[in-house]
Amino acid sequence: MANNNTNNKRYKKPKPYRVNASKKKNKDTVPFRVIPLGGLKEIGKNCTLIECNNEILIIDCGLAFPEYEMFGIDIVIPDFTYLIENKDKVKGLIITHGHEDHIGGVPYLLQEINTPVYASPLAMGMIDHKLEENFLTCERHVIKAGSKFKIGSFKIEAIQTNHSIADSLAYSIKFPGGHVVHTGDFKIDYSPLDGKVIDLNRFSQLGDEGVDVLLCDSTNVMRKGYTPSEAVVRESIDEIFDNTERRIIIATFASNVHRIKYFFEASMKHNRRIAVSGRSMENVLALSRKLGYLDDLPESIFVDIGEIRKIPDRNLTIITTGSQGEPMSALTRMAYDNHKSVKLKKNDVVVFSSSPIPGNEKVISQVINKLYEKEVEVVLASTMDVHVSGHASSEELKLIHTLLRPRHFVPAHGEYRHLIEHAKLSNKLGQPKNRIYVMGNGDALEVEGKNARINKGFTSGEDVMVDGYGIGDVGSVVLKDRKTLSQSGLITVSVALDSESGSLMAEPQLRTKGFVYVEEHQDLLTEALNVVYNTIGKSASAGKLDEVSLTRAIKSDMKTFIYNKTKRNPVIIPVILYV
Amino acid sequence: MANNNTNNKRYKKPKPYRVNASKKKNKDTVPFRVIPLGGLKEIGKNCTLIECNNEILIIDCGLAFPEYEMFGIDIVIPDFTYLIENKDKVKGLIITHGHEDHIGGVPYLLQEINTPVYASPLAMGMIDHKLEENFLTCERHVIKAGSKFKIGSFKIEAIQTNHSIADSLAYSIKFPGGHVVHTGDFKIDYSPLDGKVIDLNRFSQLGDEGVDVLLCDSTNVMRKGYTPSEAVVRESIDEIFDNTERRIIIATFASNVHRIKYFFEASMKHNRRIAVSGRSMENVLALSRKLGYLDDLPESIFVDIGEIRKIPDRNLTIITTGSQGEPMSALTRMAYDNHKSVKLKKNDVVVFSSSPIPGNEKVISQVINKLYEKEVEVVLASTMDVHVSGHASSEELKLIHTLLRPRHFVPAHGEYRHLIEHAKLSNKLGQPKNRIYVMGNGDALEVEGKNARINKGFTSGEDVMVDGYGIGDVGSVVLKDRKTLSQSGLITVSVALDSESGSLMAEPQLRTKGFVYVEEHQDLLTEALNVVYNTIGKSASAGKLDEVSLTRAIKSDMKTFIYNKTKRNPVIIPVILYV
Repeated sequence: MANNNTNNKRYKKPKPYRVNASKKKNKDTVPFRVIPLGGLKEIGKNCTLIECNNEILIIDCGLAFPEYEMFGIDIVIPDFTYLIENKDKVKGLIITHGHEDHIGGVPYLLQEINTPVYASPLAMGMIDHKLEENFLTCERHVIKAGSKFKIGSFKIEAIQTNHSIADSLAYSIKFPGGHVVHTGDFKIDYSPLDGKVIDLNRFSQLGDEGVDVLLCDSTNVMRKGYTPSEAVVRESIDEIFDNTERRIIIATFASNVHRIKYFFEASMKHNRRIAVSGRSMENVLALSRKLGYLDDLPESIFVDIGEIRKIPDRNLTIITTGSQGEPMSALTRMAYDNHKSVKLKKNDVVVFSSSPIPGNEKVISQVINKLYEKEVEVVLASTMDVHVSGHASSEELKLIHTLLRPRHFVPAHGEYRHLIEHAKLSNKLGQPKNRIYVMGNGDALEVEGKNARINKGFTSGEDVMVDGYGIGDVGSVVLKDRKTLSQSGLITVSVALDSESGSLMAEPQLRTKGFVYVEEHQDLLTEALNVVYNTIGKSASAGKLDEVSLTRAIKSDMKTFIYNKTKRNPVIIPVILYV
Repeated sequence: MANNNTNNKRYKKPKPYRVNASKKKNKDTVPFRVIPLGGLKEIGKNCTLIECNNEILIIDCGLAFPEYEMFGIDIVIPDFTYLIENKDKVKGLIITHGHEDHIGGVPYLLQEINTPVYASPLAMGMIDHKLEENFLTCERHVIKAGSKFKIGSFKIEAIQTNHSIADSLAYSIKFPGGHVVHTGDFKIDYSPLDGKVIDLNRFSQLGDEGVDVLLCDSTNVMRKGYTPSEAVVRESIDEIFDNTERRIIIATFASNVHRIKYFFEASMKHNRRIAVSGRSMENVLALSRKLGYLDDLPESIFVDIGEIRKIPDRNLTIITTGSQGEPMSALTRMAYDNHKSVKLKKNDVVVFSSSPIPGNEKVISQVINKLYEKEVEVVLASTMDVHVSGHASSEELKLIHTLLRPRHFVPAHGEYRHLIEHAKLSNKLGQPKNRIYVMGNGDALEVEGKNARINKGFTSGEDVMVDGYGIGDVGSVVLKDRKTLSQSGLITVSVALDSESGSLMAEPQLRTKGFVYVEEHQDLLTEALNVVYNTIGKSASAGKLDEVSLTRAIKSDMKTFIYNKTKRNPVIIPVILYV
């Protein structure tokens, strides 16, 4: 049908790829497998394994933020069971970049397995910070684009890419079984702020050398054309700085170091000093300074956030966290008048150099409305180009596929629909359908020479939920209880019975929480107490005063009574004490 | 500054309006007030009052859906206290259109005040349905565009507008105090599916006659240009129907009667029979049929959803609810394989003729991914023009302002930022700032001749939360408890003490819910029980076994113990029974 495929009419379907991969004859081949433990059919907790000759290489180890209805869950990590069971095979962990969905699981992994970690300077700095917080250490290897190194039998090369965080890498991984390329998260930026353009030449050479398996970012596959360059953001920021004498407050992702550096440079050019607010922003700033990213900026342009009152509006820029409307973030605190040092004023210019992460739209809206109440001028990516995505759109993906011409293709990093659309895209470029593998977490791609197949459910690709110190101890039953409690609260019914005669030893006690205002509903609770007396009476007559029977009877009668009176279903918790 | 105002450079600021309103001299004027009870600074529960000479006219009476963290709340309605206190003044309720945020509060209002209701056929049909469900009746007046009628001293005229529901009206309301125009929700559609173009000529005449106060829809003020016509949707639907032989399933808003009718017509043209799924869709369809909107369609084109197996794919269209990913809706049930009659098949075409209502993005995403898993072809408004908004964009708003040239302007219907941007827009057109009133719910605009002022907090504009049968009995404390319960669950501690000696009469009982899997944490609970014994021991030694002291001690000790062990904060509920 014609609809969302119409734009593809101009493509004549190319002939199948000239694939150079695995030139060796099949009898020489060594089998290997690629196992995405996380990162497929979801956004987050990226973690991919390559296993060959009893050696396992891990690529990324991220976390995911809790989904709707994961009540009380702090974060979600991959299930490391397979790695723990095969501890001795694990040779190392290589990191594509420092975003939480690629490194957030590292401390949890290292608690279980002590394996060397290879990462670019910024990503490693962020991992160091996490390890310190968790009193962990590991063998650290700082690598850069162009670095070549060996982990066990894996010959690895780090390749420059572009993304919304500095020092992002793709990996070429060669080993006895074959050659795997993992793009990490990337876009193609011909004019990135740090001048380091994605190394397309190297991708081209790798394609010529032959790629057995390509894993490639799918996030923006449904966007047509090209993702704009970070240079576009620079132009918009210049326009803002050129046209206002007011205080400028910019909220953005802390890890976008080069963009933040540009905010610093623009401020300097306009005689503005810079204050930074938000813990993650301060941490990344300290790290960037340590790594030398800010070497060409004089220390004197920075001002402590507590000292900004002394600075005239036209001479001040504040860089802050909170672009996602996070309740405790610096910008949200400013919007709600809870920030210790920043009191927003009429005509302040607040720039959201960000786009909403799906699910955050509504809380961000609330923050924006609060800012409007303060008569602040709000600049959003929807009205001005103050943000660009870090992920490749469809035309960029086509370029990478065309350069690499892999034998087997695994769409990676995306919701299910993105994986499917990425599969379709590669098929349209000539990749045969039977060499495209839309996999799930925990599946294994078993490769042997030219042949590959999905081994479904090879190991667990489940979510492991972290709540406080508890890792994986909150499951679906507990979550369901939390949901029920959140809907109508609870009523406890405590009863003391004589263990011999079964007679009531004290007035039964009702307690409610999250149900109704108790003060306004004394009548309801008095009636409810009568229900308890009746139930005990009935149970006594029936000779059913044992704990199981009486608990069940109280629960059932109370549930019916409360529902009929209120149309609500609070959790009923009877407790019988036999004295 | 230049950013989001750049597009306005081409406007030369016009001179202040030539306003015709209130030609009478000030000494002849009768004061009146306009009170938005709801609908400002929020999306939903629209309800506006006009009060003059001890007569009150109500315009719309809607509901809002619960915000984030309104745990367990079904809906939110306006606070009717002012109306209840002034029951005798209330002369009638006029309805602009049949969307829930304009009629959903009607049964709750009529429970309190029996007042006549004036609405267009479709809106009245929907209200009838609500009243039946609630065993309510009222004096009903069905009106149409062009209808002129009197309610008390209010001379009212209903004016044709365009919106995403049939029979949408604006109102001109003339009364001793002046002339108020309320646009309702609207857009300007020069080619609406029912051929009834918004009555711009009448708006123009009303402007010439003079308008004292204009209340105008602000929803899409931040969108540049014009909102596309429904005709655009028709073209996309034609393209889909022309190009597929597969089963077509279309999810849309049930109330968009004309669009749904077009789906029927397109189906007929392509020899497709139509099945309908989802309660609200069935209700609206039955109502549309009763009102004669479907008179030109033969009954025979419809097929019961239970009978669709007999129909070849190319001859079937299914129209369904669920475009917002609602968990119990028909489309969601199809996606999750829970639909009684529809089993989705590979290559079915599923069209979302809708856009996500803010806050629903993530659940909709989940449904879309499920559809992809079924290898269904999904058509979204983001990839094809299968949906257009029902609200006027900035250029349309400029037209209405220019035609009406009100003396006083109240931006209505929108989040706070929309109200502010609408105020700026009208100011740019020449409306003086001191005659633009950005109001809050419960504020009153006090008008007397040429003069008007905001009377802040004139009455309550609060949210009234409905939970089951309870109206307004769930407040912030209960909601806070529900939130806490949802995060970490609870632990109850039941203790039986001898009321005289204070000695423990039975083993204290712990119960948890939504905290951890009890089976896996017996050790933790055993330790927790020891904490209870210790606390009771300490309290006994200190002679503090009274209920208040012991409850407090158990709560405090248990809280500390659990937090240190788990980093979680469940609700602790101690119950002491003195036997």
